[in-house]
Amino acid sequence: MKAKVYITLKKGVLDPQGKAVMGALGTMGYREVKDVRVGKFMEIEVDSPSRQKAEERLKEMCEKLLANTVIEDYRFEILP
Amino acid sequence: MKAKVYITLKKGVLDPQGKAVMGALGTMGYREVKDVRVGKFMEIEVDSPSRQKAEERLKEMCEKLLANTVIEDYRFEILP
Repeated sequence: MKAKVYITLKKGVLDPQGKAVMGALGTMGYREVKDVRVGKFMEIEVDSPSRQKAEERLKEMCEKLLANTVIEDYRFEILP
Repeated sequence: MKAKVYITLKKGVLDPQGKAVMGALGTMGYREVKDVRVGKFMEIEVDSPSRQKAEERLKEMCEKLLANTVIEDYRFEILP
């Protein structure tokens, strides 16, 4: 089973990397860019007996390792 | 207009960060994880006169700055 995990900074958490990207785009002439937020994207291949089990385990993985839940939100989707 | 940009390593490009995450998950007991690929995810707010223009400019931004097209693929979607 394949899962896609998206990790983003929570609203209100400063994103210096995003600001740097926005600044770089600005100096390159892309002044229409008003905000950039950078997150992570993971493709995970899991060998699970069921979709429900995979979902449960992925939630745990996100909580324990993949995301820092103090400052980050996560969501994932399991591909059919 | 809001756009979501997904940047992933091309197939065949080694992903040591993904391997490290997979190793960490393995030592935590998540042995069902068979592969992890780590990419980037960006949320970009653009101020564009039209959706078509935004698409055109975003493609340029990806090609010129956001993705390293030698080793990375990108795709983006513009939210309505």
